[in-house]
Amino acid sequence: MSKLTSRSEDYSKWYNELVVKADLAESSGVRGCMVIKPYGYAIWEKMRDQLDKKFKETGHQNAYFPIFVPKSLFEAEEKNAEGFAKECAVVTHYRLKTDPENPQKLIVDPNAKLEEELIVRPTSEAIIWNTYRNWVQSYRDLPILINQWANVVRWEMRTRLFLRTAEFLWQEGHTAHATKEEALAETEQMLDIYADFAENFMAVPVVKGVKTPSERFAGAEETYCIEALMQDGKALQAGTSHFLGQNFPEAFDVKFTNKEGKIEYAWATSWGVSTRLMGALIMSHSDDYGLVLPPSLAPIQVVIVPIFKGEEQLKQIDEVAFDIQHKLKNLGISVKYDNRTEYKPGWKFAEYELKGVPVRIAIGPKDLEKGVVEIARRDTLSKEIQPIDNIEVYIKNLLDKIQQEIFHKALKFREEHITKVDSYEEFKEVLETKGGFILAHWDGTEEEEEQIKEETKATIRCIPLEGEREEGVSMISGKPSKQRVLFAKAY
Amino acid sequence: MSKLTSRSEDYSKWYNELVVKADLAESSGVRGCMVIKPYGYAIWEKMRDQLDKKFKETGHQNAYFPIFVPKSLFEAEEKNAEGFAKECAVVTHYRLKTDPENPQKLIVDPNAKLEEELIVRPTSEAIIWNTYRNWVQSYRDLPILINQWANVVRWEMRTRLFLRTAEFLWQEGHTAHATKEEALAETEQMLDIYADFAENFMAVPVVKGVKTPSERFAGAEETYCIEALMQDGKALQAGTSHFLGQNFPEAFDVKFTNKEGKIEYAWATSWGVSTRLMGALIMSHSDDYGLVLPPSLAPIQVVIVPIFKGEEQLKQIDEVAFDIQHKLKNLGISVKYDNRTEYKPGWKFAEYELKGVPVRIAIGPKDLEKGVVEIARRDTLSKEIQPIDNIEVYIKNLLDKIQQEIFHKALKFREEHITKVDSYEEFKEVLETKGGFILAHWDGTEEEEEQIKEETKATIRCIPLEGEREEGVSMISGKPSKQRVLFAKAY
Repeated sequence: MSKLTSRSEDYSKWYNELVVKADLAESSGVRGCMVIKPYGYAIWEKMRDQLDKKFKETGHQNAYFPIFVPKSLFEAEEKNAEGFAKECAVVTHYRLKTDPENPQKLIVDPNAKLEEELIVRPTSEAIIWNTYRNWVQSYRDLPILINQWANVVRWEMRTRLFLRTAEFLWQEGHTAHATKEEALAETEQMLDIYADFAENFMAVPVVKGVKTPSERFAGAEETYCIEALMQDGKALQAGTSHFLGQNFPEAFDVKFTNKEGKIEYAWATSWGVSTRLMGALIMSHSDDYGLVLPPSLAPIQVVIVPIFKGEEQLKQIDEVAFDIQHKLKNLGISVKYDNRTEYKPGWKFAEYELKGVPVRIAIGPKDLEKGVVEIARRDTLSKEIQPIDNIEVYIKNLLDKIQQEIFHKALKFREEHITKVDSYEEFKEVLETKGGFILAHWDGTEEEEEQIKEETKATIRCIPLEGEREEGVSMISGKPSKQRVLFAKAY
Repeated sequence: MSKLTSRSEDYSKWYNELVVKADLAESSGVRGCMVIKPYGYAIWEKMRDQLDKKFKETGHQNAYFPIFVPKSLFEAEEKNAEGFAKECAVVTHYRLKTDPENPQKLIVDPNAKLEEELIVRPTSEAIIWNTYRNWVQSYRDLPILINQWANVVRWEMRTRLFLRTAEFLWQEGHTAHATKEEALAETEQMLDIYADFAENFMAVPVVKGVKTPSERFAGAEETYCIEALMQDGKALQAGTSHFLGQNFPEAFDVKFTNKEGKIEYAWATSWGVSTRLMGALIMSHSDDYGLVLPPSLAPIQVVIVPIFKGEEQLKQIDEVAFDIQHKLKNLGISVKYDNRTEYKPGWKFAEYELKGVPVRIAIGPKDLEKGVVEIARRDTLSKEIQPIDNIEVYIKNLLDKIQQEIFHKALKFREEHITKVDSYEEFKEVLETKGGFILAHWDGTEEEEEQIKEETKATIRCIPLEGEREEGVSMISGKPSKQRVLFAKAY
């Protein structure tokens, strides 16, 4: 197995190699689209199942809406249409026919042109709010709390596996409410669910905040987000929750009779996370040896590798290993015993390091004599000897400990890479030398935001919702600022 | 709540009304595409989870491949391309722009024409086998056992909710093997999994069989299927498993070095079931009052309805109902207690009958005095009084019993509607008067098959794999036949 490019050498190359070599995903024969391979998909399934559980616990139900948005619906909410028009895949025909000039080839049948073009959904507000119109008459029909797991397409010109692909998988929640307050509470609740998931399952610390107007979702009144920091000092938006006000309800005429008998437009939210989270997971924890996975998202949490010469030794180890495997499984731990004879232990060690299996147990004949095994942690690459007796309890606690420590390591890194600056000079210097998040004062204008972006490539990731609210003055214009905002270069 | 059209009056109308009124699905603003509503989606999720479990237990893993198939890949396997070319959605452009003549409108940007058109996948053999080429070098890389849960698009001209929609949800398994025998065994294994699922979870009896050449999947060497019989005497294909031979491996050049060091093409299978199963479920069991769901697929298995006058009575019932609910939940039963005061018990009874909740528990003040409740079965519409004491155990057993009895009722119907005929006259008469499956001899030619189809609209659903193999002569040509085949009009 050839080694990965190191992170210090070329972070971007390291990422691409890791995604492919660890069997997470690969580019497909379709421009900008990826194949999510079984190992990568297994991690995504764990993310999906955990989020789905949280959505259902908070009263949401899943449903499914069409992948196609007729152009007339697509353009109904003006800002949303404007935001996505430049990057959407358009279906114009519904049939192919044999090429009369080359019978082995197919061509688009010009007689099968659609009367109205169909957009492959880049997001589903339009099609969903067009449906909600018939579902909402009275306040009794509200709230509607629906989520959809789906594929969406945004025709991005520069794509990267998981981080930016033409097609990606995501969930999109779309809720309708009787009051503004309720819709706002929903928006915030979903942001909290995302933050909790990122920190406690992905072990990725996030800053919760609000986007500036220029960074808002097209059609939203307010976009809440969680922002994570990658190991190369760049930020990654890991989830967004939008308060849509009455924009879509007005565009699609979704009205209801309130308790007082008056007719009102509904209030809307939408919120989503995508396979982009896979990128955040990989870039938060992994190292030059491969993936580092928090136990809660690892498809294989423990691997057992036998060290043996000859069949007789393997047989003895098999017995102990199957017993440990059985005991671990009973505790709900996913464990693989790899006793294949065609691969050497060293090869297996490297393979499971690359794949990010959190704990490896190695068992050799001398270990058996002493009643011990060797336990290796993937995250710290440390090894220790532990008695076989009650090993399952030890491993269970170790997995919990690893989950915590991976998070705290990432948190420490994040804390070390949040810098407060007060001058634009310092801002540029920190950005250049250290990277990471920069907390600085901004005068609230789009002009200043744009200037900083053009001159430094840093954007305002969010206006943080938590932490101290220190007043000050903008580092450029000198105008007053109520709180520092979070800048970074971003994925 | 307005009543459903009865089945005897207009079966087709009954079906459409039921799907909409029971909140399973509805037509969308997009031609031929449906919205799967939360209640319908919850049933589909249960189907999906159960199938997914079975796939994983037999060594399959999930993955995800692009929704778009470039035209050059699409046409690579000739028969497959020919089969789907007439009904595929084609993406030709990747951008919209403002209409210069009407700035409120968007038009397709002629400068954003794709160099190569993209087909929205009607099935994924092409894109997947194009990917497998890079995954397979040696026999050690085989088998590849992959499944995908995805949406697909087939531009059907006449659509019906769940049964035939332009977009539908499905799973598609795509496996690669080193030998023909192994691929055939996989094809048969997956057919068995589908049959077991249909009978034991959906309570829908099925006939396992093989399609005639003219009914095969485009590109398959052999198509296995399960066929179910609906209450109106029409058949419904509920799942297919294809032995693809080496057609796709040859078309996409997927070769490997076998154990003897020789280079061979891989062997292929694919297999799928779709949201069409929802149609099979509905039309197998439901009645003029609404859905009848087998307990294993019911999102709500038990509903408790209080019968009360005034708050004091409700309070007393609440106490008992919450206790029953708690005990049922502990047994893994999904139970809803509907103590809403704005709806009357009669309304609730009709509602849960429409939604097919298998068991209803009604509790009134007199019941409480006697320590009993009223239990109503949805499938038989029968009622009985049972003591509250240990009611949870009674209900658990009752749910098992209902599951069995729904299946046996459907099986009895199916058995009563399989008719053996020996003359074409009789064939036509049975088809006209009684419908159902007809077992008859066929001479094995496409001509005779086509003649029967044209003259009667009945098709050969399958050549059954099980049951007696009675030799005979074709009812039309008089030529010899090795076994009777299964005819029916079909969805």
